[in-house]
Amino acid sequence: MTIQTDILGNTDDIITREPLPASTKVYVCGTIYPDIKVPMREILLENDDKLRVYDTSGVYTDPTVDIDVAFGISQIRKEWIAKREVEEYDGRIVAPKDNGYNSEEQLEHATAGSDGLVRIPLRAKKGENVSQLYYARKGIITPEMEFVAIRENQDRAMSERYLSDEEREKRLKGHNFGANLPEEITPEFVRKEVAEGRAVIPCNINHPEVEPMIIGRNFLVKVNANIGNSATSSSIAQEVEKMVWSTRWGGDTVMDLSTGKNIHTTRDWILRNSPVPIGTVPIYQALEKVNGVAEDLTWEVFRDTLIEQAEQGVDYFTIHAGLLLHHVPMTAKRVTGIVSRGGAIMAKWMIAHHKENFLNTHFEDICEIMKTYDVTFSLGDGLRPGSIADANDEAQFAELKELGNLTKIAWKHDIQTLIEGPGHVPMHMIKENMEKQLEWCDEAPFYTLGPLITDIAPGYDHITSGIGAAMIGWYGCAMLCYVTPKEHLGLPNRDDVKEGLITYKIAAHAADVAKGHPGARARDDAMSLARFEFRWIDQFNIGLDPERAREYHDDELPMESAKVAHFCSMCGPKFCSMKISQEVRDYADTLDLSVDAAKQQGMDEMSEVFKKHGSEVYVKVAK
Amino acid sequence: MTIQTDILGNTDDIITREPLPASTKVYVCGTIYPDIKVPMREILLENDDKLRVYDTSGVYTDPTVDIDVAFGISQIRKEWIAKREVEEYDGRIVAPKDNGYNSEEQLEHATAGSDGLVRIPLRAKKGENVSQLYYARKGIITPEMEFVAIRENQDRAMSERYLSDEEREKRLKGHNFGANLPEEITPEFVRKEVAEGRAVIPCNINHPEVEPMIIGRNFLVKVNANIGNSATSSSIAQEVEKMVWSTRWGGDTVMDLSTGKNIHTTRDWILRNSPVPIGTVPIYQALEKVNGVAEDLTWEVFRDTLIEQAEQGVDYFTIHAGLLLHHVPMTAKRVTGIVSRGGAIMAKWMIAHHKENFLNTHFEDICEIMKTYDVTFSLGDGLRPGSIADANDEAQFAELKELGNLTKIAWKHDIQTLIEGPGHVPMHMIKENMEKQLEWCDEAPFYTLGPLITDIAPGYDHITSGIGAAMIGWYGCAMLCYVTPKEHLGLPNRDDVKEGLITYKIAAHAADVAKGHPGARARDDAMSLARFEFRWIDQFNIGLDPERAREYHDDELPMESAKVAHFCSMCGPKFCSMKISQEVRDYADTLDLSVDAAKQQGMDEMSEVFKKHGSEVYVKVAK
Repeated sequence: MTIQTDILGNTDDIITREPLPASTKVYVCGTIYPDIKVPMREILLENDDKLRVYDTSGVYTDPTVDIDVAFGISQIRKEWIAKREVEEYDGRIVAPKDNGYNSEEQLEHATAGSDGLVRIPLRAKKGENVSQLYYARKGIITPEMEFVAIRENQDRAMSERYLSDEEREKRLKGHNFGANLPEEITPEFVRKEVAEGRAVIPCNINHPEVEPMIIGRNFLVKVNANIGNSATSSSIAQEVEKMVWSTRWGGDTVMDLSTGKNIHTTRDWILRNSPVPIGTVPIYQALEKVNGVAEDLTWEVFRDTLIEQAEQGVDYFTIHAGLLLHHVPMTAKRVTGIVSRGGAIMAKWMIAHHKENFLNTHFEDICEIMKTYDVTFSLGDGLRPGSIADANDEAQFAELKELGNLTKIAWKHDIQTLIEGPGHVPMHMIKENMEKQLEWCDEAPFYTLGPLITDIAPGYDHITSGIGAAMIGWYGCAMLCYVTPKEHLGLPNRDDVKEGLITYKIAAHAADVAKGHPGARARDDAMSLARFEFRWIDQFNIGLDPERAREYHDDELPMESAKVAHFCSMCGPKFCSMKISQEVRDYADTLDLSVDAAKQQGMDEMSEVFKKHGSEVYVKVAK
Repeated sequence: MTIQTDILGNTDDIITREPLPASTKVYVCGTIYPDIKVPMREILLENDDKLRVYDTSGVYTDPTVDIDVAFGISQIRKEWIAKREVEEYDGRIVAPKDNGYNSEEQLEHATAGSDGLVRIPLRAKKGENVSQLYYARKGIITPEMEFVAIRENQDRAMSERYLSDEEREKRLKGHNFGANLPEEITPEFVRKEVAEGRAVIPCNINHPEVEPMIIGRNFLVKVNANIGNSATSSSIAQEVEKMVWSTRWGGDTVMDLSTGKNIHTTRDWILRNSPVPIGTVPIYQALEKVNGVAEDLTWEVFRDTLIEQAEQGVDYFTIHAGLLLHHVPMTAKRVTGIVSRGGAIMAKWMIAHHKENFLNTHFEDICEIMKTYDVTFSLGDGLRPGSIADANDEAQFAELKELGNLTKIAWKHDIQTLIEGPGHVPMHMIKENMEKQLEWCDEAPFYTLGPLITDIAPGYDHITSGIGAAMIGWYGCAMLCYVTPKEHLGLPNRDDVKEGLITYKIAAHAADVAKGHPGARARDDAMSLARFEFRWIDQFNIGLDPERAREYHDDELPMESAKVAHFCSMCGPKFCSMKISQEVRDYADTLDLSVDAAKQQGMDEMSEVFKKHGSEVYVKVAK
């Protein structure tokens, strides 16, 4: 295990590199592209079985890889990208204001030691498009597509170990609300889903470090983690570790929502070290550049920011282009008005200028930038409800409809597109969100924040939102933006980030199970079998948080011997229902003898009752 | 605030009595029965508004009441019960084995100081029935019925403050799956619901301390908390405080699942001090009496235990009478067999004896005992699935069907009846549970454990199950049995109990909101309004856990000034979207002026766009 200290000298911050318990990083090679190495986490069980699970943690959990965060992780996509119609160019010159400073001197001081992370940017050659959607529509299967096909498939082989065909047929059938979940994900299936806009592979050509992943309702439900500093807290080094920490606990993508000083440099650090796609909300930085005065925003400042971030390698941009001037008054009678930061900024700009949202009027200009770098749109919901009272109202749906219009424009340019969604929505109104989104946005992947199903539990909004997230994931939402326990109250710390992520992995996984995703159930079944067989260590290690599971078990029964005990602290040795259940099964195995005994006791009639009910156990007797 | 030390001398254990922040206990009197005093918690807001919320915490949060746990809390139902066809009698003599001892001497030592909690038992006079169902069917509205009518109603008056009639009409409409949720709960409505078996008011005549509450799908969804010692931990004093602690955080009922020493005395302590109904699983104690050997259980031992506990005042009994001999083999091919303790015990007994479940064969004998004390049945699901692989299988549904048969028998005896449900069920299979239960058990209230929607998150099963609980509550489940983070790993401590309860209050409340319960949304709206108006203290106090909310806010902005700041730590002062949103609204208020300004800037056409879209704001201009 290598521990890296912050190169800015902050030794409190370290990069977490320890693999999860009993876990080994394995890589699966491609067929079309043999140089592809798709990472998976293999958990060694007590019975020598191995369970492979989807792994978002990148090389950080591979102890065979040396990492120096001052120089970035390896660029696995570099060769793939180099073969495309791309060119290096000088790129934009980083200005002090990009980091919130007024002079070169301040900038140099703040970014000392970051040189190893600056790259020469790539762009599509003039007139070319290098997006995955462009290639997909041309019928080309990219290495990224084969990568995600292998990655999505891994569970499927496993599930067969745990279930017979008959059981699979009977029990694995979910309720998928029209999703298309094939038994095997082929590279061609991936290409087709991308080509039809139902899925996106966010991967800027300037982010060669990313391990490709796919977001779409016909794939595993994904989870995004937000990280970011703010005016009142955080340091750059904390941000990098936050990204690593987020991917460790299952974050499929990370959004960098920083708003304070050094945001440009923070972004370089994160991108050069990130194995997962990074998203941003460029309007936040643009606003910094105009000193926080929304009215002073201009298309030029915004455009400059888009290019700045695209050159750095941001994989998807949240752009609040669907919020129109005539939508703003619709929010006046809301209980909580506009709660999206981006939405509020644009509303303020529109009111101040009495003009249409420049993100909307310049949408095709934005498209030109997006396709130059294969940045994916995440069309923001600036009017998402901030309370269940405001859910599904006129303002929210008016904006969603406009997002549908913009999707068509983005697709015209072959730009991959996600649609962002709410927010705060009571349970009975969640489904309508999904249905309208699928209809109005032509099945472009939906990406929601929660939704929170009640407003009354500050401190527990990972749970209020995790419930809504599980449900909308089941209904067809492709990616869930996590919410931490600190939502509405403060910024999440390390523990909060983990708590939020585990909650959202539960939601995403439960959605996969309910949809009937062919491989999803394997991990549940492995866990249940470990429970039944009292393999305690396996119960810890198969779970989403092995550390906590073991710690909780230790609270009651810390002795190592208890980890092999055929009982647990809930009932104690005499009372264990699992143990009795095991005895029931043993009994069933020795049934002939037992039934003989029964007969001896003059209880033939009872045996007859059994036979009449045709149970498997008594069929033996009938023979 | 009074702190009570454990009379057994254990000064580490104290009874929590501090009211929640800004909260006052208020009592509402009855109309039919003027001596009724229904407790509610009134939260004083910063704007001098008052919010009344349902309060399960009993007199413990009323600082004007002196409590000595060695003598029990006041017996509010004593006079009501005395007027019924009841009689005092000598009752059963407590034996050392009731507490797990072999000699009188041991018993005396263990129960020293408990004399103040022993009462002379009551029973129905010979041939009489004193159950709430009996009275309801006779057309009699009992004080308990008026009490719960007032208690259930309290939110309704409040909700009107936050919503206009139009908004109510439009937004409060939930999706209730056939539930009947009237605008006002009248005592007659309560009577009718009880008479038709759709709701129960668990209240043993020997538990006069209980503040009546109702469980049924047409009322607020309720939450049960389990407490209990075990072979490996706990003390009696901890159990009493656990009950108090559970009701503090919203436990509507408490099940005492103790299995170790002193369980009889523990039960006296809990019952004499409990303002909420107490449930038990009598088979656990019966098993203790036969030294943990399931085969040695007899109807006589069980019967003795039922009477013992009924005389003490237990309000509802979980009885696994629906698990039949021919169901047992159906579990042999399950992944996790039988996971219910009661189910496993009875399965073992049946196998050992090759006889039908004596709880089933003696069901009418049990009914005779239940109606003598008005104990409510909670018909146990001994075959609930212990993994999502086993959900909704033949065994589970065969037992549920038998529970429906038993319900009819119980109702024939005018005995109130709940039906217990799973367990582990993936999201897409939850609804079928609710539908079958409603159909087969004729709408008797359903009472489920979770269900957990995935098996892969030990350490987080309050969340995996809270999701399922919210959903089944919405579909019509009347009471949710909480699950703590320690589920599957160990016994919950104080923090776990609170975490589990808050999670389940979220689930129950969200279900009420989704069903369209007329008063449910008021608290959400009060919270959202406090958010929009930056009333931070109110945001803490309106929430389910004021302490945690404040603590989290303090993490970032500990200064008292931040509690009145018009921004929060998430965005900082410059960026706050709520603040901008407030400005949008202010802008709307001064619109005439703004539009004039717009005209001066030659932007009339934009105003026209607004008018065309007919927003409320620009209608003013049209005038």
